[in-house]
Amino acid sequence: MGSQEKNYRCASIGALRDIQRETLHDALELTGTEVSVNRMVAGGSVPFLHSHKLNEEVYVFLKGRGMFQVDGEEFEVEEGSVVRVDPAGKRCIKAAEDEDLSYICIQANSGTLVQHTATDGVIHEGEPTWG
Amino acid sequence: MGSQEKNYRCASIGALRDIQRETLHDALELTGTEVSVNRMVAGGSVPFLHSHKLNEEVYVFLKGRGMFQVDGEEFEVEEGSVVRVDPAGKRCIKAAEDEDLSYICIQANSGTLVQHTATDGVIHEGEPTWG
Repeated sequence: MGSQEKNYRCASIGALRDIQRETLHDALELTGTEVSVNRMVAGGSVPFLHSHKLNEEVYVFLKGRGMFQVDGEEFEVEEGSVVRVDPAGKRCIKAAEDEDLSYICIQANSGTLVQHTATDGVIHEGEPTWG
Repeated sequence: MGSQEKNYRCASIGALRDIQRETLHDALELTGTEVSVNRMVAGGSVPFLHSHKLNEEVYVFLKGRGMFQVDGEEFEVEEGSVVRVDPAGKRCIKAAEDEDLSYICIQANSGTLVQHTATDGVIHEGEPTWG
């Protein structure tokens, strides 16, 4: 069957240490999220505050250290920090002066998740092809 | 103002090398996605095929090597591999025999993203508190 009929898309964005900003929506033809993989260079920052109209954002910090702020409240982030920001939150990020800050940012339409994991998943009989 | 009124939640899941499986939905009170951060030990695999009722999944592979399959088609994954699977795709993952496989998996209701990034974001006047 043709690629258009397959139930998946796959791609590569390369080694995380070399990434500046890779966005997955178009590459993977996403319909439920936009996902970006980012590496902010040491001392760098987003130069403005932003909010969203519809989308909730989730940040997963993979490496490095930095600061996050929402509505004027600042807090530190580092590897393993995870943050949700509601659409209305005015947010900004900066990397530490001496270390790049790598993170994934996920946008999804707020309030649209109906169910997940055990209630949304269906386990099938039959083994994976690798047995 | 109380925590319930804030436009964000933050938490820590610790160093990625120590994670087995951390799910963020409840910790961050997510409304648009479920996000899990996973480390499958070398030689391990999901022991069944599964699909979803509503949710599109996005996988971002952070470290290691392994195999992915959808509807009986196998392909290799490694750091930087990204995969979208439609709800109907019957999927499975296994880690290489000699290396743990770390990845993030994102579930979101298929077809619910209306707009993103430039069309959903709003840039605000005024500077971040760090100037």
